[in-house]
Amino acid sequence: MREVRVVGTGLIPFGKFPDQTLAEIAWPAVREAILESGVKPKEIGGVFCGTALGGMLAGQRIMKTLGISGMPIINVENACSSSSSALSLGWLSVASGQHDVVVVVGAEKLTKFGGGTLPLEREDWEVNQGMVMPALYAMRARRYMHEYGLTETQLAEVAVKAHEHGALNPNAQIKKRVSLDEVMAARPVTEPFTLWHCCPTGDGAAAVVLASADVARRLEGKDVRIAASEVTSGLYTDHFRDMTWPELTARGARGAFEMAGIGPEDVDVAEIHDAFTIAELMYYEAFGFCGRGEAYGLLKSGATSLGGSIPVNPSGGLLSRGHPIGATGVAQAVEVTRQLEGRAGAHQVEGAKVGVTHATGGGIAGLDHGACSIHVFAR
Amino acid sequence: MREVRVVGTGLIPFGKFPDQTLAEIAWPAVREAILESGVKPKEIGGVFCGTALGGMLAGQRIMKTLGISGMPIINVENACSSSSSALSLGWLSVASGQHDVVVVVGAEKLTKFGGGTLPLEREDWEVNQGMVMPALYAMRARRYMHEYGLTETQLAEVAVKAHEHGALNPNAQIKKRVSLDEVMAARPVTEPFTLWHCCPTGDGAAAVVLASADVARRLEGKDVRIAASEVTSGLYTDHFRDMTWPELTARGARGAFEMAGIGPEDVDVAEIHDAFTIAELMYYEAFGFCGRGEAYGLLKSGATSLGGSIPVNPSGGLLSRGHPIGATGVAQAVEVTRQLEGRAGAHQVEGAKVGVTHATGGGIAGLDHGACSIHVFAR
Repeated sequence: MREVRVVGTGLIPFGKFPDQTLAEIAWPAVREAILESGVKPKEIGGVFCGTALGGMLAGQRIMKTLGISGMPIINVENACSSSSSALSLGWLSVASGQHDVVVVVGAEKLTKFGGGTLPLEREDWEVNQGMVMPALYAMRARRYMHEYGLTETQLAEVAVKAHEHGALNPNAQIKKRVSLDEVMAARPVTEPFTLWHCCPTGDGAAAVVLASADVARRLEGKDVRIAASEVTSGLYTDHFRDMTWPELTARGARGAFEMAGIGPEDVDVAEIHDAFTIAELMYYEAFGFCGRGEAYGLLKSGATSLGGSIPVNPSGGLLSRGHPIGATGVAQAVEVTRQLEGRAGAHQVEGAKVGVTHATGGGIAGLDHGACSIHVFAR
Repeated sequence: MREVRVVGTGLIPFGKFPDQTLAEIAWPAVREAILESGVKPKEIGGVFCGTALGGMLAGQRIMKTLGISGMPIINVENACSSSSSALSLGWLSVASGQHDVVVVVGAEKLTKFGGGTLPLEREDWEVNQGMVMPALYAMRARRYMHEYGLTETQLAEVAVKAHEHGALNPNAQIKKRVSLDEVMAARPVTEPFTLWHCCPTGDGAAAVVLASADVARRLEGKDVRIAASEVTSGLYTDHFRDMTWPELTARGARGAFEMAGIGPEDVDVAEIHDAFTIAELMYYEAFGFCGRGEAYGLLKSGATSLGGSIPVNPSGGLLSRGHPIGATGVAQAVEVTRQLEGRAGAHQVEGAKVGVTHATGGGIAGLDHGACSIHVFAR
């Protein structure tokens, strides 16, 4: 496999755009990525589009709007890992030599679903009985609190940190700080979560252009490479599972670190899947940024805040940047690429050389997630 | 890229199974393919699942039902090309050396949609104004009849041929012959199509196991290789287009033949996308099986029937085997593999060495299809 670099990034500010079609939401992100890359449209060998609920031929509709077509376009669905799985396929396409340049886009329009249920619920009896995402993560939070003595107030500090970061990010859906009191006093969703413990729903799109090292050298100044691309699925076992341990993420992180030839201590910046406050803490441990039960200590130390030793979710993460399902994975890749290139603006992690993205999702069989995609970027 | 072989095939008889979930419909096809292959479940490096309307995490739900999990599972949506695009990704995964063994599954449950509209219609104004698939193909048929003097009776003969083949296929959704009079007298759908000119809607699933040549040699008797894998998208131009010429398929066929190093004269058997009678005739020409305007002559000569020089859709094709959208591409691959292995039963094409599959679909911007996947198989 040959080296693959990120040569262009594009992102729209996440928000709610109920009057726009998915293609209208997404094309500006793709255009930005292509223009930033400097590749000509005719050089694009393939397009991989990640969307969970965007309907048929989302990638074709987006590229048609841009007037770029004729190349293979493949749409990928993997729940919250949709566009990060598309990213993995784009990586494989360039790494294998199939294409020299590909576009990967993630796009989602959640506003059109209103309060409706998601398609998965029709065929998953646990979801059908009420084990929707907030309930699932709330159960995990309760167990974690029981095991490690975490308090509701301590858990709320994750939301405070997320919004401190997001307030610095012009592309975040929620661009304001919240106080610990505000988090604690907000509308309850499911114990121990108030509204601020949960990522918002919304619409968004993000895109990257990937290219071989040969193409990247021609374009100049394109130094961020994909050092690892790992997609995994859950084990779906029926027996007892430790709810405080995200086995899927831990397994994926091991694989990604091995592929990249690094360890957690080498990571300068991470965008991880903080769909709920407890998720960020559990994933600190799954990635090995700290030991088990030590996540709150790591947060409290300031290590995972901007200015700390391993800033996590400098973009604001899912809690603040937002989580239009299929857009998240590529949005993380855009964020980390810009971080490594030193152009993340007010939320820049100084001197970052190695970054990690992590998108996991699709509850299935209760505790196991359906898909987890982890990428390591390096310069 | 290294050689990729088909080492296992699985298919359920297509039909209507409104009381089963997608996973319940699909797992027997995957099980059959794995058992036929002789690979151990733990050897499966990845799973690619094609479905257009199966909802989130279809592949994960199917593999969970089988109790096989933990490997990367990626779901692919490309309208009628969903599982043929998944097949192309599976091919790339093995060809590139990413994995030695992968499963590709196509599955669809159309009965759950009843008479409802498809998601695409919400964002495509031409579809929204009535340019649904039967209307689109009917316009093409009318233009073809105008250009080349084809009559409604002649067009109906395509349906007669399809059901002659399908009556021999125990896995076909419609397993009976129809007479020319029956086709002509059936309920009208959209002129010049009666009901028998249109593929039925239904549910179905198909699966293949792909492996490297090294693995295939160990398994013994696995001699069918994928000689070409080509995915293309439409050009979506706004100007005049010749409605009688499926540009996307013609371009894809050229690419696939070039990759395989063969020409149309080398094809012994073809499974092509006869969603409507006119489609089969147009695709004869796009593949170069005959010249433009000569398709009816080729049909009438018997060349494309069982026993002819280039039997097309010996399975009965979409018109008779059925067309559960996301299942079709892999079902075609199963059919062609079994043909090349000489075990297609009553609809065997004697001595077939080279076969082609073709799944194209997703009307977008009117005449252009969104995705077209063509594979060449050889032994």
